[in-house]
Amino acid sequence: MSTPPPPGVYVPAVLFFDENEEFDVPAIKQHVLRLARGGVTGILVQGSNGEAQHLSREERKTAIALTRQTLNESGFENVIIIAGTGAQSTRETKVFNEDAKDAGATFALVLTPSTWPKAMTIDNIIRFHTEATDASPIPTMIYNFPGVTGGLDLDSDIIYTLSKHPNIVGTKLSCGNIGKLQRLTSRLAPSEFAIYSGRSDTFVHGLNAGSAGVIAALVNIAPRVHVDVVRMWREGGEEREKAMELQAMLGHADWASSAVGGIGGIKAVVARHFGYGAKEGWVRGPLQPANPAKLQEDNLSYKILVDLVSLEKAGNGLPN
Amino acid sequence: MSTPPPPGVYVPAVLFFDENEEFDVPAIKQHVLRLARGGVTGILVQGSNGEAQHLSREERKTAIALTRQTLNESGFENVIIIAGTGAQSTRETKVFNEDAKDAGATFALVLTPSTWPKAMTIDNIIRFHTEATDASPIPTMIYNFPGVTGGLDLDSDIIYTLSKHPNIVGTKLSCGNIGKLQRLTSRLAPSEFAIYSGRSDTFVHGLNAGSAGVIAALVNIAPRVHVDVVRMWREGGEEREKAMELQAMLGHADWASSAVGGIGGIKAVVARHFGYGAKEGWVRGPLQPANPAKLQEDNLSYKILVDLVSLEKAGNGLPN
Amino acid sequence: MSTPPPPGVYVPAVLFFDENEEFDVPAIKQHVLRLARGGVTGILVQGSNGEAQHLSREERKTAIALTRQTLNESGFENVIIIAGTGAQSTRETKVFNEDAKDAGATFALVLTPSTWPKAMTIDNIIRFHTEATDASPIPTMIYNFPGVTGGLDLDSDIIYTLSKHPNIVGTKLSCGNIGKLQRLTSRLAPSEFAIYSGRSDTFVHGLNAGSAGVIAALVNIAPRVHVDVVRMWREGGEEREKAMELQAMLGHADWASSAVGGIGGIKAVVARHFGYGAKEGWVRGPLQPANPAKLQEDNLSYKILVDLVSLEKAGNGLPN
Amino acid sequence: MSTPPPPGVYVPAVLFFDENEEFDVPAIKQHVLRLARGGVTGILVQGSNGEAQHLSREERKTAIALTRQTLNESGFENVIIIAGTGAQSTRETKVFNEDAKDAGATFALVLTPSTWPKAMTIDNIIRFHTEATDASPIPTMIYNFPGVTGGLDLDSDIIYTLSKHPNIVGTKLSCGNIGKLQRLTSRLAPSEFAIYSGRSDTFVHGLNAGSAGVIAALVNIAPRVHVDVVRMWREGGEEREKAMELQAMLGHADWASSAVGGIGGIKAVVARHFGYGAKEGWVRGPLQPANPAKLQEDNLSYKILVDLVSLEKAGNGLPN
Repeated sequence: MSTPPPPGVYVPAVLFFDENEEFDVPAIKQHVLRLARGGVTGILVQGSNGEAQHLSREERKTAIALTRQTLNESGFENVIIIAGTGAQSTRETKVFNEDAKDAGATFALVLTPSTWPKAMTIDNIIRFHTEATDASPIPTMIYNFPGVTGGLDLDSDIIYTLSKHPNIVGTKLSCGNIGKLQRLTSRLAPSEFAIYSGRSDTFVHGLNAGSAGVIAALVNIAPRVHVDVVRMWREGGEEREKAMELQAMLGHADWASSAVGGIGGIKAVVARHFGYGAKEGWVRGPLQPANPAKLQEDNLSYKILVDLVSLEKAGNGLPN
Repeated sequence: MSTPPPPGVYVPAVLFFDENEEFDVPAIKQHVLRLARGGVTGILVQGSNGEAQHLSREERKTAIALTRQTLNESGFENVIIIAGTGAQSTRETKVFNEDAKDAGATFALVLTPSTWPKAMTIDNIIRFHTEATDASPIPTMIYNFPGVTGGLDLDSDIIYTLSKHPNIVGTKLSCGNIGKLQRLTSRLAPSEFAIYSGRSDTFVHGLNAGSAGVIAALVNIAPRVHVDVVRMWREGGEEREKAMELQAMLGHADWASSAVGGIGGIKAVVARHFGYGAKEGWVRGPLQPANPAKLQEDNLSYKILVDLVSLEKAGNGLPN
Repeated sequence: MSTPPPPGVYVPAVLFFDENEEFDVPAIKQHVLRLARGGVTGILVQGSNGEAQHLSREERKTAIALTRQTLNESGFENVIIIAGTGAQSTRETKVFNEDAKDAGATFALVLTPSTWPKAMTIDNIIRFHTEATDASPIPTMIYNFPGVTGGLDLDSDIIYTLSKHPNIVGTKLSCGNIGKLQRLTSRLAPSEFAIYSGRSDTFVHGLNAGSAGVIAALVNIAPRVHVDVVRMWREGGEEREKAMELQAMLGHADWASSAVGGIGGIKAVVARHFGYGAKEGWVRGPLQPANPAKLQEDNLSYKILVDLVSLEKAGNGLPN
Repeated sequence: MSTPPPPGVYVPAVLFFDENEEFDVPAIKQHVLRLARGGVTGILVQGSNGEAQHLSREERKTAIALTRQTLNESGFENVIIIAGTGAQSTRETKVFNEDAKDAGATFALVLTPSTWPKAMTIDNIIRFHTEATDASPIPTMIYNFPGVTGGLDLDSDIIYTLSKHPNIVGTKLSCGNIGKLQRLTSRLAPSEFAIYSGRSDTFVHGLNAGSAGVIAALVNIAPRVHVDVVRMWREGGEEREKAMELQAMLGHADWASSAVGGIGGIKAVVARHFGYGAKEGWVRGPLQPANPAKLQEDNLSYKILVDLVSLEKAGNGLPN
């Protein structure tokens, strides 16, 4: 029986590229450090926001090792690394799990394959995760993100069944389904199976429902705000009410980050406001870099993100 | 500027049929009274769970009038009637809105047409609801239920735009998207635009996020439990924690009601445990009546619903 | 064992409205007569292109009766009327089948309900069509059009099973799946079960595969061209090659008719080139009338339709 | 301006594995030779049926090189190799295109990425294929298979636009849309842009519409039958009618091959009837090997495939 990752705030770190789509190592390192200093409990390397699907096997290992090394160099040995490892075959998923361990990851977050949707029966879904985990040198978690699996959406029954595997220790619910989340938290203690909201717009709602925290893209912009929300929520009373007020803001910012262009938009916002990475928000095709027209103050979505940045910096004692 | 319905618990009442698929008037009346005695603030006649899509125009009027009459006969003049009125054309929706008013409804809940999905652009969605409401003698609300509209799912931006219409006064979010709900509640006061969870598994989460309550199928089985949850939640403190515990139970029961067969299953559970309506749970085809094999104590889903019934009866001071 | 409709060209007639969305009776009559004079074997009243989903029960009957009367008045007693009758419940479908017979239809074309997609199991699909047909006073046909049933798509096995019912006599395949069509034609003689292409872009391909002809929206613009294609195809040899050349043109025109706005676009093209009906191409909301910007000669799609009109008129000995 | 592959029959070769999911080299070689001796014009290595999505980069190269070598060893230098190369990023697609050339492929068939469906706008689809082709050392073709791209389906306008690129020379339409196929063939000569049916059930229909032939999974079972069909079709007259009769059979067999289990089923049928490869039909997970219960003579689908095998062997002068 493996132990799940501890409760807290995790970030599916975006990965910085230069104009040739090569790793922008200085930016990657600065980003990792800003996230760690922001207080995150762990970093998900190769979530969908980390462009896992756009990386070669070698690059996957390099990104994990680079993150681990960067953390350790600055005394963040305690920050956990979760590696996204789901591939389109069970076999390659096993390879990625091995690689993840070797490169320094402590947990693997496994996306379900979806090349052949009709073949993904309940039995095949369970068989896939079971076999991938049986062979894994590190504990695994279930990554449920219908947005990148052609609509394939694991329900609470399937995830509950998988939770009984001694080496499957948690899940990231990027579906945003709070009902599903609570059907799981109400039956599984965080010490045996950790359930994380996968989007910032279900963050505090998830905490209220017994989640272990959040693993969400918006943490790339505002780690400290998310960490503050957990602290306030844990204090209870009036602080918890303030956490819910921040939740409202995070829900708008989550939506806004999609509206300004998703992954490329997040990178561009980070570059512009925190001073590292290319202002173009380079991503790998077929995705498009950030659209400058959307990153203007008269765009309400951008304005919402700028407000979040201000809050993040205030917490840091930094000028906006 | 019309006023929204008051906060509270609403129920998309199931409609009881006999074996010939004709209205089972005694059962319909008993159900309405049990719901009213259970403390619901209002009854949604012709929600999808009320088989709106299976009724003729005359039957729609009859069901509304019968509900209004039954309530009034027993002193429940204050229980509000919302009528589901969305049709596949703007024109027929207008007719249904007129009919609803005439038959005794106070609000209309309008489902978006989805015959031609590609034609349902943002502009056409907004035009549809605007025109249907402009012509309506009663205030309208937006019914967002992708499960019965071929996946058509109105986002928070569209609903926010529609909320600015002086006669569109609320929404039922059957999508279960708590992030969407809070993006709306955080910008719109319940006194101007009332936002209801559309499923019991997002009920307390919705309250935490500022919703006006719930309009959900499971209230057909357990109105009093839902009403108790609102009361407990409003009291705050420890009572609010108990509300969240009940929420966990409601989340399982919501899922279980689908697992035992949806509409037919709900009717069969009601018949078996509250003594009215046919034990077969008659529905109109192409839906199927309740499957007796699923309504057995050794079926976990059924067991969950029986536990909910027990709780409902305990609150009523009734034997189980 | 009922007899299917004879092979030939059928048209899902568009229905003309005035600016108040009321029936434009003169235009409807002129359209029926132009189609009949163009040589169509039958008219489908209340196909999806006839806005079946936008009509009241009374209007459905009126449209059928008006079509029958118009045909008879001008000596077209032999032109067959098929009525689209699928409703969201089995019960209402039965009513529509009765009404269709009473109003003058010879066959009913039954669309499968799709309000609750998950409930539409193979068993429920078969039960629906079987029950609707058992009660029908006229033979029925299966209308397979995933574009208006939320993606619900009946496969060749299901349709083959239904073809064994003595009173289910054919199908319109609006899915455009030529493989499915031939799996059916190769097992079922047109004298027992008639299989029609449901789109002009699979018309001659269907004939090659053994279909009984076509029931397609584009026939509204060019009935004579379609009838000519059947004649040429039947002659064989070089004429058949010419039929295939026309097929290429029809395939482009089919696509073009969607590109200029679907139902409203077809009505506007008819009005402009054949002199009846409103040039705006009025449709019932939520659909939008024709967009004048698309009906310009410099729009390739419109140009393709104009060429088809010219060919239609040449066959009629009319000036373009 | 590159030249497309010549008209004919192509096969997305299945790839044989042993029980450890390692390449079964002897079976792969025997399969390649049987296909070549059956008269195929070319072999698609790493189509979806070749489990492209389940292979590592090295394995992709090995499979191509092994196929090329096997063909050359036996005098089949003229049999063309097309390599499936679409990856989830433009960058990796470029790498696969380079690798394909190095390993011996003459053309690359590029599947469109679909990780982020909403990001796959028309512009991004065109940009992806354009950039991937600009950098490719060999001509490319567009692989349109919505069944493995989460429903993403390129229409005739998009493919026509891409056909204007001097190095994009054809397409495989696994969507089975004969209307789309003819909208392309009617505007593009096979000498500039070759359009292939992607399924056997649209094979002769495609030829009638001007296709360059077929690239279809069923050719794995019956290459000679498919080659015969092209020959008969080209002869015209009565032979062409016989080709259409065979088409009916191929349409049933195509459907039957899915019914017996897809890729694993095809491998098992080949093993059982042609004497190489494991009778279990090993595939890589999450797919499942062949289900023996479906490979019984009393299963109609299996019976249809056995009849096809008999026909294939009769053409070979082999005992059944």
